[in-house]
Amino acid sequence: MSWVPSSLKKLIEQFKKLPGIGDRSAFRIAYYLLKDRDTLKGLLTTLKEVDERIKLCRVCHGFSEDSEICSICADERRNSGILCVVERPEDIYILESVQDLGWKYHVTGGVLSPVKGITADKLNIFDIRERIKSEGFRELVIAFSPDVESDATTSYIVNLLNDMDITISKIAIGLPRGIDITLMDPFTLKESIIGRRKLK
Amino acid sequence: MSWVPSSLKKLIEQFKKLPGIGDRSAFRIAYYLLKDRDTLKGLLTTLKEVDERIKLCRVCHGFSEDSEICSICADERRNSGILCVVERPEDIYILESVQDLGWKYHVTGGVLSPVKGITADKLNIFDIRERIKSEGFRELVIAFSPDVESDATTSYIVNLLNDMDITISKIAIGLPRGIDITLMDPFTLKESIIGRRKLK
Repeated sequence: MSWVPSSLKKLIEQFKKLPGIGDRSAFRIAYYLLKDRDTLKGLLTTLKEVDERIKLCRVCHGFSEDSEICSICADERRNSGILCVVERPEDIYILESVQDLGWKYHVTGGVLSPVKGITADKLNIFDIRERIKSEGFRELVIAFSPDVESDATTSYIVNLLNDMDITISKIAIGLPRGIDITLMDPFTLKESIIGRRKLK
Repeated sequence: MSWVPSSLKKLIEQFKKLPGIGDRSAFRIAYYLLKDRDTLKGLLTTLKEVDERIKLCRVCHGFSEDSEICSICADERRNSGILCVVERPEDIYILESVQDLGWKYHVTGGVLSPVKGITADKLNIFDIRERIKSEGFRELVIAFSPDVESDATTSYIVNLLNDMDITISKIAIGLPRGIDITLMDPFTLKESIIGRRKLK
């Protein structure tokens, strides 16, 4: 349809690139923004601000604002001695929203995947050793979403730190609260049985 | 969570203002954009372009790019003599996507709603008369989404043009293709019976 403004078509295409936004949502959002110019301008300003202010933290590889080192890494009160390894920056947000853990974090930026060509040198893994030494962590908690690739990555990290005096754990796999046991996959069920907790 | 970058928080809030985007989607999209800076920059550029280039057409009140008059209003080949009245600019897109109608359009910008304080003077209704005269339309097709308020608006328009020599129609209300008749609301069913088409 040649009469549709080209910049509007482009905007719909841009929104379709975002996760969870399909044809219809992109269409609705684009037209909405054209009518609500204040929201459009607000989004514009904030995107610009985010692009300019947010960088990767030099220490943990999570997000940092206006600074080389993020506020978690710079926080002297976080002295639990626990370093939590996660795949993505947003995983920090999810973990912290559970409760005030007082942990520090390390973002690998992915998990090993020979199929996708992701080898250890493409991830932020090797600097974990250095952090354990310089920051004196006593425990490493690995908090990946459970799948085969992250299991391999966990093994790799455990091997890498083999000679170091540090406890390594990974978060438990089991049944999520509220799910019917008959709906659970056998793998999770098996892990849940292996990881059973003594009550008495 | 004070450690979350303030610009990131703002971005999540901005996305939550958009139609169909809830807490979780806004979170996912914001983190996605922080990692995919090319997409972020692309969105930024396009939003800016849209804001600068798209305005309301002086004639039909739909969207126009770089010009006071949109390409549909400026299109000399659209000489079907039919003016289609719609509520929102995006309705033009939806109607045109059905087939090449060759119609011209007029966007009211809403429907009458005493409850919301939307009176006739807040809508683009009065200039329809002028357009009929100057552009010589023979038929007016009213294409509102069917509800009580748009019925009232339709009546208002019909009254307003009472003394003019023009055919006025509205698009049919009936069963949408593929729906089970038992699932249809009585209002639609009744309209569908009233508007039945002779087959033989």
